Amino acid sequence: MSYGHWGKLLRVNLTTGEIRSEVLNERFLRHYVGGWGFIAYHLLKEVPAGSDPLGPENKLIFTTGPITAQPLAGGGRHMAGAKSPLTGGFGAGECGGFFGAELKRAGWDIVLIEGASENPVYLWIQDEQVELRPADHLWGKPTLDCQEAIQDELGDRRIRVAQCGPAGERLARIANIISDVNRAVGRTGLGAVMGSKKLRAIAVRGHQRPPVADPERVSELGKWFRDNYRETGSAVYAEIGTLRMVRVNQNVGGLPTRNFQQGVFEGFEKLTAEAQMAITRQRDTCFGCPVRCKWVVEINDEERPVDPKYGGPEYETVGAMGSLCGIDDLGATAYANQLCNAYGLDTIGAGMTIAFAMECFERGIIGPQDTDGLDLRFGNSDALIAILERIGRREGFGDVLAEGSRRAAEAIGGDAPACTVHIKGQELAMHDPRVKYGHGLGIAVSPTGADHMHSVHDSGYTSDGGIENLKPFGILEPLPFDDISVAKARMVRYAMIWRVLDNLTGICMFHDWTPQQKTDIISASTGWNTSVLELWRAAERAYDMARAFNTREGFGRDDDILPPRLFEALPEGPVAGKVYTREEFISARDMLYEMMGWDLETGAPTRARLEDLDIGWVAELIEDVS
Amino acid sequence: MSYGHWGKLLRVNLTTGEIRSEVLNERFLRHYVGGWGFIAYHLLKEVPAGSDPLGPENKLIFTTGPITAQPLAGGGRHMAGAKSPLTGGFGAGECGGFFGAELKRAGWDIVLIEGASENPVYLWIQDEQVELRPADHLWGKPTLDCQEAIQDELGDRRIRVAQCGPAGERLARIANIISDVNRAVGRTGLGAVMGSKKLRAIAVRGHQRPPVADPERVSELGKWFRDNYRETGSAVYAEIGTLRMVRVNQNVGGLPTRNFQQGVFEGFEKLTAEAQMAITRQRDTCFGCPVRCKWVVEINDEERPVDPKYGGPEYETVGAMGSLCGIDDLGATAYANQLCNAYGLDTIGAGMTIAFAMECFERGIIGPQDTDGLDLRFGNSDALIAILERIGRREGFGDVLAEGSRRAAEAIGGDAPACTVHIKGQELAMHDPRVKYGHGLGIAVSPTGADHMHSVHDSGYTSDGGIENLKPFGILEPLPFDDISVAKARMVRYAMIWRVLDNLTGICMFHDWTPQQKTDIISASTGWNTSVLELWRAAERAYDMARAFNTREGFGRDDDILPPRLFEALPEGPVAGKVYTREEFISARDMLYEMMGWDLETGAPTRARLEDLDIGWVAELIEDVS
Repeated sequence: MSYGHWGKLLRVNLTTGEIRSEVLNERFLRHYVGGWGFIAYHLLKEVPAGSDPLGPENKLIFTTGPITAQPLAGGGRHMAGAKSPLTGGFGAGECGGFFGAELKRAGWDIVLIEGASENPVYLWIQDEQVELRPADHLWGKPTLDCQEAIQDELGDRRIRVAQCGPAGERLARIANIISDVNRAVGRTGLGAVMGSKKLRAIAVRGHQRPPVADPERVSELGKWFRDNYRETGSAVYAEIGTLRMVRVNQNVGGLPTRNFQQGVFEGFEKLTAEAQMAITRQRDTCFGCPVRCKWVVEINDEERPVDPKYGGPEYETVGAMGSLCGIDDLGATAYANQLCNAYGLDTIGAGMTIAFAMECFERGIIGPQDTDGLDLRFGNSDALIAILERIGRREGFGDVLAEGSRRAAEAIGGDAPACTVHIKGQELAMHDPRVKYGHGLGIAVSPTGADHMHSVHDSGYTSDGGIENLKPFGILEPLPFDDISVAKARMVRYAMIWRVLDNLTGICMFHDWTPQQKTDIISASTGWNTSVLELWRAAERAYDMARAFNTREGFGRDDDILPPRLFEALPEGPVAGKVYTREEFISARDMLYEMMGWDLETGAPTRARLEDLDIGWVAELIEDVS
Repeated sequence: MSYGHWGKLLRVNLTTGEIRSEVLNERFLRHYVGGWGFIAYHLLKEVPAGSDPLGPENKLIFTTGPITAQPLAGGGRHMAGAKSPLTGGFGAGECGGFFGAELKRAGWDIVLIEGASENPVYLWIQDEQVELRPADHLWGKPTLDCQEAIQDELGDRRIRVAQCGPAGERLARIANIISDVNRAVGRTGLGAVMGSKKLRAIAVRGHQRPPVADPERVSELGKWFRDNYRETGSAVYAEIGTLRMVRVNQNVGGLPTRNFQQGVFEGFEKLTAEAQMAITRQRDTCFGCPVRCKWVVEINDEERPVDPKYGGPEYETVGAMGSLCGIDDLGATAYANQLCNAYGLDTIGAGMTIAFAMECFERGIIGPQDTDGLDLRFGNSDALIAILERIGRREGFGDVLAEGSRRAAEAIGGDAPACTVHIKGQELAMHDPRVKYGHGLGIAVSPTGADHMHSVHDSGYTSDGGIENLKPFGILEPLPFDDISVAKARMVRYAMIWRVLDNLTGICMFHDWTPQQKTDIISASTGWNTSVLELWRAAERAYDMARAFNTREGFGRDDDILPPRLFEALPEGPVAGKVYTREEFISARDMLYEMMGWDLETGAPTRARLEDLDIGWVAELIEDVS
C-alpha cells in the first residue's frame, strides 16, 4: 500500500492513440519522489540521446508530488518536463494553482505523453476515464477561450486545464504550459513540446482522495501553517505579494534594467507593489494555501483592457516587461502579462528576448527594417505590446524572437550575441547575480539553465535570521551577498539542493517551512520513516539525474558559466563598479563541482557519486560521454 | 549561552603543573560536537606529526558529549583519545559507566592532558577545583585498590575514577583506561599514554547540573525510553546481555575460535549467556540507563576468586579469552576478565595477543623456551591466566606480548607475523567479517584499526526489520551478510558514519533510538535547530579528521585492508569454504573510498571533501603528505 502517491502512471501515446495505466512501485516512488525525480528518470530511460525536442521521440511528463492534493499549502502544485527545445537539455518547471491537485485527485502521479498526434487533440482525464479528443476547434484560440470551450464542451466548470496556448502550437521556444490561464510551468519552452505533439490541452477532473498515511498529522501541519504563516517568511507574500521584490532589488542596486545593463531603474516606483494595488481587483491563491500571494488586476481600458481572469503580473513579469525593457508603465506591463498568458508565452523568456532586441535596436545592430518598422527602443511600451503579439503569432520579426534570445541573436548575427543574457540558452530571470553572488553559482550550474526556482537567493542568507533554515544542514554563519569564497559555494550546495526538494514534493518556495517541518509533512503524507538526510539525498539524486541527462546531450563544463554581461560591473547604484572576477567565479564554481561530486573535466556526476545516490544505472548511460 | 555543553576545556600540563580553563565557543561545540570530533581536532592542531605516542608531546583527551549527564540512557558515557601507541595513528575509544556524567557535572566538556609528569600523579577534579596530587603510593596497585585508596584519601566514595592500571604504568600497548574498575576505553592502547605521562588516575566529583535547552523534552525522551526499550532492539541486552552474541555467532559460523582459524567452537555452550547466569550475582547498569545490560559475576573460588566489584565478562571478553583461545571454562574467562580490569588491559587486545601466541606455540614457531615454560596451547586456561599476569606485570614472555600482537610477532620473527590478525596494528574484536562482509569493510577503513564500535554489523541489516533505522538515510533494502557489492559499500558508508555520531554525543550503541529520536535528544539538550543531516555531517567531519590524522602519520591505502587470514575461508560451519576474494573486497572498499570522498591513491579525504565538511584547515595540514 502506498501513501502520498497512488503508484500510478498514465501513459498516453499520441501517435497510436494508446492509453494505458502503469504501476509505480514503492521503491520507485520513495527513490524519485516526484517532479524532477520522475521527469529525469523517464527522460533518461526513454528519450534517446540526441532526440529532437520538438520531434515525436521527445516525451512530455506531468507529475504531482507526495503532498499534492493534501489539505495543505502547496498541495496544488504540479511539475512538468521534457527535453527542452530552448536549451536542448533537461527541461522542467513547476506551477502553482489547482491543476496538480485535480490531477492527483484523478488518481495519477505521472502523466507521460509520448509520440505526436497528426491532428490537434486534447486529453480528457476524469479519474480512470481517459480519452483523447479532437482539438481542431481549439487550435489558435487564446488560452481563456480554449479553457472555457473545453469546460463547456465537457459540461463542468470545475475542470482544470493545462495547455500550451497559440505560441506553443507555433513551436515558440519560449512558450510555456499555462494552467487556469494564469499559472505557468514557465521556463525551458515546454509549451513548444506540447505544441509539437499537437496536444493543445490536458483537461482534468478528479473525485478521489489520495491515500495519506497520517491524515490527522497532515491536518495539524496545515492548521499550524494557517495559524502561523504570518510570523514566518511567508508573511511578506501575504502582505504585498511578489512585487515587493521591485523595491528590494532597486534598493540593493540589482533591479534588472535595460537588459541587465543597469541595476537601478529611475521609474521603479511605478512598478512597485504599492502601485499595483491601484489596479488590483482581488486576491487569488492556490489550492490549500492561506497566503493568497497573487494580486489579480483589472484595467478597464478600451485599447488594452486587462481581464482579471488572466490574473496579474508577478515580480518576474513586472521586471521582464517593465524595468528590463526600460518601461515604467504598469498598465502596459499588466497587459503584456495578459498577452503572454493568452498566447502561452513565458513572461521571463519573452521579456528577456524583447529586451535583448531593444538593446540590439539601440545599438544599431538591428533597425526598423528588421523589426517590421517597430521602434523597438527601451521604454517604448507600444512597441513591447506590438512585438509581443507578433511573437505569439510568429509574425514578421516576432517569428525570429519566438525562438528565444540565443537563436534570435544567431539569426541576426553581427554583435547581437553579445547582447544576450542567457545560460544554456535559457534567459535569466529577474535576479541579478551581481547583487547575490551565490545565485550566480546556482544558475550557472543548473541543469535547466538560468533558472531562479532552485538557485539560492543568497540575499536571504546574509543575516542571522535568514540563515536559520540552513542551520540544520550545518551551515551556521550568514555570508555577505558579495562573498564568492569556498564558504559561499558550500552554502549554495546545501541551499540549492534543498530547494530542489520543493520541486520533487510540490512544496511552494514561498512557504517558510523549516527543514524538519518539510520532513514532517512528507512523512505524514507518505508514512515514510524518513529524515532531512534522505530527502536531501533524493533531491541530490534528482539533480544529478538532470545533470547526467545534460551530459548525455553534450553539455560540459563550459556551459556552466554566466554570460559575459554578468562579469561586467553595474555602472551605478550600490554595487556600482563592483563584481566578482571570472577567475573568482570559476574557482568557486569548481569547488562547488567537487563538493557535489562532479567531474572537473566533464562536469558530469562521477560514478561514485551516482552509486552513492543509488543510481548506478545512470553512470552506464553517460559512460561513453563523460 | 551554551546548552548541552558547558563550553569549557580543562587543560592540564603535567610537565609544568599548569592547570587552566579555556572557553570553547558555540561554533566549535556545534561543529565538533564531542568525542572523536573534539579529540581529532586537538590531535591535529596540537600534536606534531611524527610525535612519539608515549612521549610528552602526545596529548590525552577526555571528552563528554552534548547528552552527557542528562537524565537519559547514555548520559554516563565519556570518550578518550590520543595518538595511539598501538597503531601509531588516531587512537580513541568510548566508555559507559558513571565517570562521564561525573566529569560533565564537574563543569567540563574536555579535559586535555599534555606533557608528562616526572613522578606519578593523579588529577583531582572537584568542579572548578582542580589539582594534581602525588600518586607514588598508588603506583603499581591493582585498579580497585587504587580507586578505593583515592576515594578514601579524598573522603568521598562517590568520587569516580578513571585510571590506567599497572599495565598502563608499564606502557603495555594493549593497556586501556579503566573507570569504575569495570568499564574501559579499551582499544588503541590509551592506558599506555596515560602511563607514559605518569598520570595514574583522574578522580572526579561534580555537583553542577549541566545546562540543558529543553529539560522537559529530555525527560520526556528519557521516559519514553524507559517505558519502551523492551519493545526495541535494546530488549535483548536487558534480557540476556551481550553474551547472547556467543550463540548468535556460533550459529552463523562466525564465533572467533582459535585465533580466527575457526568460526565454530565445540565448547561454546559453556560460554553462553545462560552459562553466565549461574555465576551472576547481580545486574549493573550505567548512569541513567534502565537496560541494565551488565551481568556482574562472583566466583568464590579459592585459587581464582572473582570479585563482583570488577564486574563481569562481556561478549568481547568471553570471545577473546574463551573460544578465541579454545577455552570453554567460563570461570577462567571471568577470572581473566578480572585480571584485565585489575591490570588495566584491553580484554580484546590481550586475548587476541595471547591467541596469537598460542597459535605460534602450536605451530612450533615458539616453544616453552620462549614462554618461560608455559604450555601455551589452545584450551589451556591455566596458561591463559599465567601469561595474562605476566603481561600485566611485563614479566618474561609477558613483556613481549604486552606490546600487542603485531610488535610481538616482529620480535618473535619467522612465521609469527602470519599468525597475527590485526588492522593497522590493532587486533580484531570478536566479529568475524567472514560472516558479515560489511563489517569487514568498516574495520578495514576505520581510522582506529580493527574497531567494532562504529563499523556496521551487517547481520543487523539483513532483514526488513533490521533495515528500518537505515531507511532515513535512503538505504531501503536489506542485504545478505555475504553481499560485497556497491550496495553493501553504500550501506556501510551510511551505517558506520551514523554510528560515529554515538561516539560524538555519548549515545550508547545498545540503545535502539531511531535517527530522528537521536536528533531529538541532541536538539532537546543543545537547543540546536539541527537535523539528521547536520548530525550526519558532523560525524563525517569527525571521521575524516581522524583519517586525516592518519594520513599525516603516514597511513595510506594499503593500511585499509583485512589481514591475510580473513581472506581464507573458514574450514567448517555454515560458511565453510566461502569467503569474498581479495579483489571483490578491494573493489567494494575502493567504491566506499570514492563515495566517502577519499583519494584513491592516498586514501586521504580530498580537499573538496574537507571543504564540504567546512574543515578546510585540515587540508592544509595534510597537503604535503597526501
